[in-house]
Amino acid sequence: MASESGKLWGGRFVGAVDPIMEKFNSSITYDQQLWEVDVQGSKAYSRGLQKAGILTKTEMDQILQGLDKVAEEWAQGTFKLNPNDEDIHTANERRLKELIGETAGKLHTGRSRNDQVVTDLRLWLRQNCSTLSALLRELIRTMVDRADAERDILFPGYTHLQRAQPIRWSHWILSHAVALTRDSERLLEVQKRINVLPLGSGAIAGNPLGVDRELLRAELNFGAITLNSMDATSERDFVAEFLFWASLCMTHLSRMAEDLILYGTKEFNLVQLSDAYSTGSSLMPQKKNPDSLELIRSKAGRVFGREDKEAVFEVSNTMSAVIQVATGVISTLQIHRENMARALSPDMLATDLAYYLVRKGMPFRQAHEASGKAVFMAETKGVALNQLSLQELQTISPLFSGDVSHVWDYGHSVEQYTALGGTARSSVDWQIGQVRALLGAQQA
Amino acid sequence: MASESGKLWGGRFVGAVDPIMEKFNSSITYDQQLWEVDVQGSKAYSRGLQKAGILTKTEMDQILQGLDKVAEEWAQGTFKLNPNDEDIHTANERRLKELIGETAGKLHTGRSRNDQVVTDLRLWLRQNCSTLSALLRELIRTMVDRADAERDILFPGYTHLQRAQPIRWSHWILSHAVALTRDSERLLEVQKRINVLPLGSGAIAGNPLGVDRELLRAELNFGAITLNSMDATSERDFVAEFLFWASLCMTHLSRMAEDLILYGTKEFNLVQLSDAYSTGSSLMPQKKNPDSLELIRSKAGRVFGREDKEAVFEVSNTMSAVIQVATGVISTLQIHRENMARALSPDMLATDLAYYLVRKGMPFRQAHEASGKAVFMAETKGVALNQLSLQELQTISPLFSGDVSHVWDYGHSVEQYTALGGTARSSVDWQIGQVRALLGAQQA
Amino acid sequence: MASESGKLWGGRFVGAVDPIMEKFNSSITYDQQLWEVDVQGSKAYSRGLQKAGILTKTEMDQILQGLDKVAEEWAQGTFKLNPNDEDIHTANERRLKELIGETAGKLHTGRSRNDQVVTDLRLWLRQNCSTLSALLRELIRTMVDRADAERDILFPGYTHLQRAQPIRWSHWILSHAVALTRDSERLLEVQKRINVLPLGSGAIAGNPLGVDRELLRAELNFGAITLNSMDATSERDFVAEFLFWASLCMTHLSRMAEDLILYGTKEFNLVQLSDAYSTGSSLMPQKKNPDSLELIRSKAGRVFGREDKEAVFEVSNTMSAVIQVATGVISTLQIHRENMARALSPDMLATDLAYYLVRKGMPFRQAHEASGKAVFMAETKGVALNQLSLQELQTISPLFSGDVSHVWDYGHSVEQYTALGGTARSSVDWQIGQVRALLGAQQA
Amino acid sequence: MASESGKLWGGRFVGAVDPIMEKFNSSITYDQQLWEVDVQGSKAYSRGLQKAGILTKTEMDQILQGLDKVAEEWAQGTFKLNPNDEDIHTANERRLKELIGETAGKLHTGRSRNDQVVTDLRLWLRQNCSTLSALLRELIRTMVDRADAERDILFPGYTHLQRAQPIRWSHWILSHAVALTRDSERLLEVQKRINVLPLGSGAIAGNPLGVDRELLRAELNFGAITLNSMDATSERDFVAEFLFWASLCMTHLSRMAEDLILYGTKEFNLVQLSDAYSTGSSLMPQKKNPDSLELIRSKAGRVFGREDKEAVFEVSNTMSAVIQVATGVISTLQIHRENMARALSPDMLATDLAYYLVRKGMPFRQAHEASGKAVFMAETKGVALNQLSLQELQTISPLFSGDVSHVWDYGHSVEQYTALGGTARSSVDWQIGQVRALLGAQQA
Repeated sequence: MASESGKLWGGRFVGAVDPIMEKFNSSITYDQQLWEVDVQGSKAYSRGLQKAGILTKTEMDQILQGLDKVAEEWAQGTFKLNPNDEDIHTANERRLKELIGETAGKLHTGRSRNDQVVTDLRLWLRQNCSTLSALLRELIRTMVDRADAERDILFPGYTHLQRAQPIRWSHWILSHAVALTRDSERLLEVQKRINVLPLGSGAIAGNPLGVDRELLRAELNFGAITLNSMDATSERDFVAEFLFWASLCMTHLSRMAEDLILYGTKEFNLVQLSDAYSTGSSLMPQKKNPDSLELIRSKAGRVFGREDKEAVFEVSNTMSAVIQVATGVISTLQIHRENMARALSPDMLATDLAYYLVRKGMPFRQAHEASGKAVFMAETKGVALNQLSLQELQTISPLFSGDVSHVWDYGHSVEQYTALGGTARSSVDWQIGQVRALLGAQQA
Repeated sequence: MASESGKLWGGRFVGAVDPIMEKFNSSITYDQQLWEVDVQGSKAYSRGLQKAGILTKTEMDQILQGLDKVAEEWAQGTFKLNPNDEDIHTANERRLKELIGETAGKLHTGRSRNDQVVTDLRLWLRQNCSTLSALLRELIRTMVDRADAERDILFPGYTHLQRAQPIRWSHWILSHAVALTRDSERLLEVQKRINVLPLGSGAIAGNPLGVDRELLRAELNFGAITLNSMDATSERDFVAEFLFWASLCMTHLSRMAEDLILYGTKEFNLVQLSDAYSTGSSLMPQKKNPDSLELIRSKAGRVFGREDKEAVFEVSNTMSAVIQVATGVISTLQIHRENMARALSPDMLATDLAYYLVRKGMPFRQAHEASGKAVFMAETKGVALNQLSLQELQTISPLFSGDVSHVWDYGHSVEQYTALGGTARSSVDWQIGQVRALLGAQQA
Repeated sequence: MASESGKLWGGRFVGAVDPIMEKFNSSITYDQQLWEVDVQGSKAYSRGLQKAGILTKTEMDQILQGLDKVAEEWAQGTFKLNPNDEDIHTANERRLKELIGETAGKLHTGRSRNDQVVTDLRLWLRQNCSTLSALLRELIRTMVDRADAERDILFPGYTHLQRAQPIRWSHWILSHAVALTRDSERLLEVQKRINVLPLGSGAIAGNPLGVDRELLRAELNFGAITLNSMDATSERDFVAEFLFWASLCMTHLSRMAEDLILYGTKEFNLVQLSDAYSTGSSLMPQKKNPDSLELIRSKAGRVFGREDKEAVFEVSNTMSAVIQVATGVISTLQIHRENMARALSPDMLATDLAYYLVRKGMPFRQAHEASGKAVFMAETKGVALNQLSLQELQTISPLFSGDVSHVWDYGHSVEQYTALGGTARSSVDWQIGQVRALLGAQQA
Repeated sequence: MASESGKLWGGRFVGAVDPIMEKFNSSITYDQQLWEVDVQGSKAYSRGLQKAGILTKTEMDQILQGLDKVAEEWAQGTFKLNPNDEDIHTANERRLKELIGETAGKLHTGRSRNDQVVTDLRLWLRQNCSTLSALLRELIRTMVDRADAERDILFPGYTHLQRAQPIRWSHWILSHAVALTRDSERLLEVQKRINVLPLGSGAIAGNPLGVDRELLRAELNFGAITLNSMDATSERDFVAEFLFWASLCMTHLSRMAEDLILYGTKEFNLVQLSDAYSTGSSLMPQKKNPDSLELIRSKAGRVFGREDKEAVFEVSNTMSAVIQVATGVISTLQIHRENMARALSPDMLATDLAYYLVRKGMPFRQAHEASGKAVFMAETKGVALNQLSLQELQTISPLFSGDVSHVWDYGHSVEQYTALGGTARSSVDWQIGQVRALLGAQQA
């Protein structure tokens, strides 16, 4: 029924292979970054083949030297891609053959493309996670150092964007640092599962040439060996784990950025971003936009929900930039400590007022209501909560007496929160110590 | 508290602007594709400025000629990007200034970057959707032509991957063509909402220079004008709509690909992919993999859940390639009509056997049960359903008589489905006619 | 190899059907809401069967009456579910059989479960989209009425959360109303594609009993008939479209809520939420949280990325509640017009200062720079931008003269934005008229 | 400007609190499941309050007894919800007050709702993850036992749904078991991070009453204490981690289900699902659908992309059902060992044929090509690959000699794959041992 050309009913293309198909299949534009680990993997595999008797010592040496030459060309920027190189693996093998001849054809014995791709990807990701890990710890360290230096500064803690309770500025910094410390811990777990050797799994059934996978593991410095060849070549759990890690870490950085954007508005005016992390408007001359923070926030979107190999490269690069910019932002951020102090208002001590009554014996639910009445009375009279007279307070509850004046002290307020994790100085000190200890442990 | 350098607590970088920040902000690597529409938009805007009295006729002519020169350089591949060009818009304006001097600085009067970006994006997407629309109709046309030519061929309709009922091969093709016809319809609606002029909205408040937006609309051939300047510069509904359209269309192509992958397995063996759309294995010499179909299926993942501007470019290109490959696949696919016939088995007529009893007056629920008993009896005896004797059938129901033999004819079976949308020849004809009529209407 | 029980290697369960499996399969807990449309669909189908000669007139009447009785039981809350009723369709059929006996078994002749499910779902969604459509228009109307009444009030337009330019409060309302108008338009398109009859498609091959689908369409008041039986029973494009519509609409409501949360903070203090849409804190007596707005924002998350049938019910209910709460919020919101006026500051007129120079003949890029210098000079001197003397301004550009004082008028500033879509009174009037006209057209 | 009622411009509702708002806010329908852990948490907190001197011993005992009574009512199903109970926490406190009077109002002293909610959620999830962990290990154990018992059975390993190489059936089982073993490992890590006490964090600043968080930790048997009170009450990393874990686990179960659906088709016919895990069709009497497998596959969609608290309950329940059904499926699955043997075909040994030449000294790339030629020759002649004569093979390469006949033995083929992780018997034994060891370690 088909015509000679193989074309049955119309259709755009007829011939050997549809050129769109080839372009479709090609990954060379983004997987070139694998050149170094691809050479590493091939070198290890050729040693495995030699030990298994598939390559002679001479052949192995020829291949090793050829691969070194390939690597050199990449490193010096002289490697020339060929239009037919569909990915980095074929490109390197093609070049090897040009350099050393037919022996190059022995390198792929018993190794499938999947085998090779997944090994390279694990090697690349291991290396990049290691860098990300260090960058992340540097950011946390910068944050903790700031928290350490500025623990005297109080400002409003917000919930639902409403002023809630006075807290230390350091307490806010640490709330974000602690979240990042979990990311740092999780990344170590992901790295552990990335660091497993798949090479020697063949297409599906395994390797039939007696290649010693323990030798491959040692050559490539992996921590363990995959258990099942079918699983090894097809599973990408480690990619999903890495992308999830990135999503969660970006969520944390994004939340911190959101807070800082807000604190930096004319209306809040609590912090000021360094010029190095701001940009202007092409239309409005007076504008100074918190672009670094907005980019951190928006990059979160690029990280979520990606699932392919290309995503790994992009997400890894994004994370690296984002973490570095965040470190820069935090280390240069100016804070307006007077505005911070001014932003504290007596109604934020309404909880303390309730606790005052609790300490006099009133159940909290009633104390909460009594304090709420005081807030309402102050609002109605148009005065601040701490300007209600004792007599006025006593119309709400006879438990109020002269010592209620001690409630109206922000420094005193925060110092009550001594339970572990709270905003009292002693607790902030404890937090700083804990995070530093964790950083130390994670680095080791 | 800050040191002179603005660096407070460690941190990687100190200086004018963090270079990572600049790279972070840059979009020139992917938004260069906008060069042509950016020039178009600027030409229209300079006409608007002239009518508003901001540019003299001479200045406008200078700018128009300069922009034509910029376009020429892009078209001829001689445009040179500068390291400081952060996006296509600044690049074009920078070059314009080099070409015509200070007058270039008047072009941006009253126009914000957002204004310009969103106008360019709409122009680009309008053009690309138009191409996608044509490609999609070409695919549907190829499918309908095939359905038209091969309507005599019967094969099993599957549900839950189990053989369900005999259907026409054309019926299967049309089930996918009809889904794509909805995509084609939806794309027209998306195009309508893309085709709205935002230019003249400024940063947020609108345009204060009396620029005639109706003139801009006519110059750029938009169908309508955005209603509110704040909404116009910030909304990206049309991007979300386009990406959703692509997701749904990819879902349909992906499902078709999945069916064809299955029909092409050794086990099903109903169709055979052209070599132009297959590839081999680097390890297993006998393998011929349906790579085109797998890529269509997997590209679905790249389309889902993207949300940024870069996504628009990538998704548009992906859709273009995917639709063309799908057209190629369908137009060159070989079908094994003998295997299709052989895959039909009498148990697939069990529903017809029930209908036979229904026509004799038995309620369907009872008839379904009776037919089920016959299937079970045949399985137990190890014979095909149509090999049960009349006597055997009568032990199940006395309503069976000699004319039951007419049930065992696949051609007869499919010819019963004459209700609109069914698999009878008349209904398939109707479907072909309907889809062709829709295609005609959509093209117009 | 298997033991008698069918259990091979351990495992939790052995017997006829694993009870977890049954629970797994059951959808009755959420699909009961379909009871009414299920009865409607069955009534129409029994008319179709009668016309096709499968049911006698008497049998049809028996079925119709039985179905009316079933509906009555549901309406009165007396319908009793049976533990074996796995979904609403089997429940209704089971009850029908109890009520009218074996004739009930004829109702399902030629109709598959998929046929029935998808018909019911379309009927249900058609009805609910119609309600949502009306609720959404009511919200838009409330917003436009407010915009109409409050067009004299100016306040800062923000970009990047930084004060950008003075705009009318109505302009802000309309920017959100216009987005919702697009949602309203899109919903009409979705409704059009929901309103297509699938019934009469059988399992896969179509309907073999000569059922007149045109009669079914007319009975159920659908606008069109599905083209292909395989596609009809399996496609859920209309569900995906509805969910996407809900996502986009929620994005718009969510953005509006985010703005209002911010405008309602102590720091911005531009609007105040009615008590009916606020809640308190269980711990902090002074807190009044914008819970309605936060819920609107957070419900967005519940709408995104759902894909199953259960999602349709939940998302539809969520949208209905969210739109009504948003209408309530907008209609009761108090605005602080003095604070709005106070929030305007001279630096927001820096763009106007640049336009002043443009009108004197300076290219915009230079004017932008000159205005930027003025902003910097004012900051350095610690004065407001409009407090720079003419002499000071003239050190920046000799083009400044006495008439520069006209720039410092916010009312004058917004009145410049007369281009369509801008914030000038005439343009706001035009927007109000346009949105009202669209509402009228969409309602018709 | 507002009318007395607070209603400004139309709008649906005016009054104290919009009733839709209340319903909107309510979570009692799904968070009732927390009743037990809520009582646990409150009991521990009242001990903390007593130690801190906020409660007397008598008051604490009163509260503890009251809470026990509340728990008893829930356990016995006699707890009566009140229309005003917006969540489980208010319901329990309301009931406690009815039972013991005003003292109940002291229980919430210094504890915020967030504090309480997140503590309850962690307690609940800890308990459920522990169950899921056990269920998952039971599934893996069932799989390994089957792999152990059936290691003699060979069948085709597929890639791209094309027959690739002969493998052991056990090798396929283990490929899935190994993936699940990683899930089991990951779940332990998630559990570790769930098992951290947040209680004692208050609203944001911490707990100001000197509550001993170490006592709370010990009472509730948590492994550690959260570091920062702001982070503790707002972070939901553990929820995201749990949902991601569920997604990945579902991906694995879904893939296994997909394979089994395919292997169970008439066309593949390699396995047969137990009736306990199959269902029929309402229309087609002969159908037996693999519903259990399809549900496992489709439930994956319900797990992905959820993010709210309700999701935790639903996903946890889904996972529990899915894992149990999977265990049932695997333990009752029949395999057709003859069909498995029959599905092996000589072309699947083409890789072995290439290796034959490699062992004679030919580079693999050439051997791959030579073997490919043999496949093509066999296809052209219409014979099986192993039916080519030695002479015919020698036209392709002189390296072929009589011993090539040893290639055509499937058992011999799989036995070559002795490298760790391969499909040789020794390697399968090793895998079984490894997975069992991991299971043992994870259980401990």
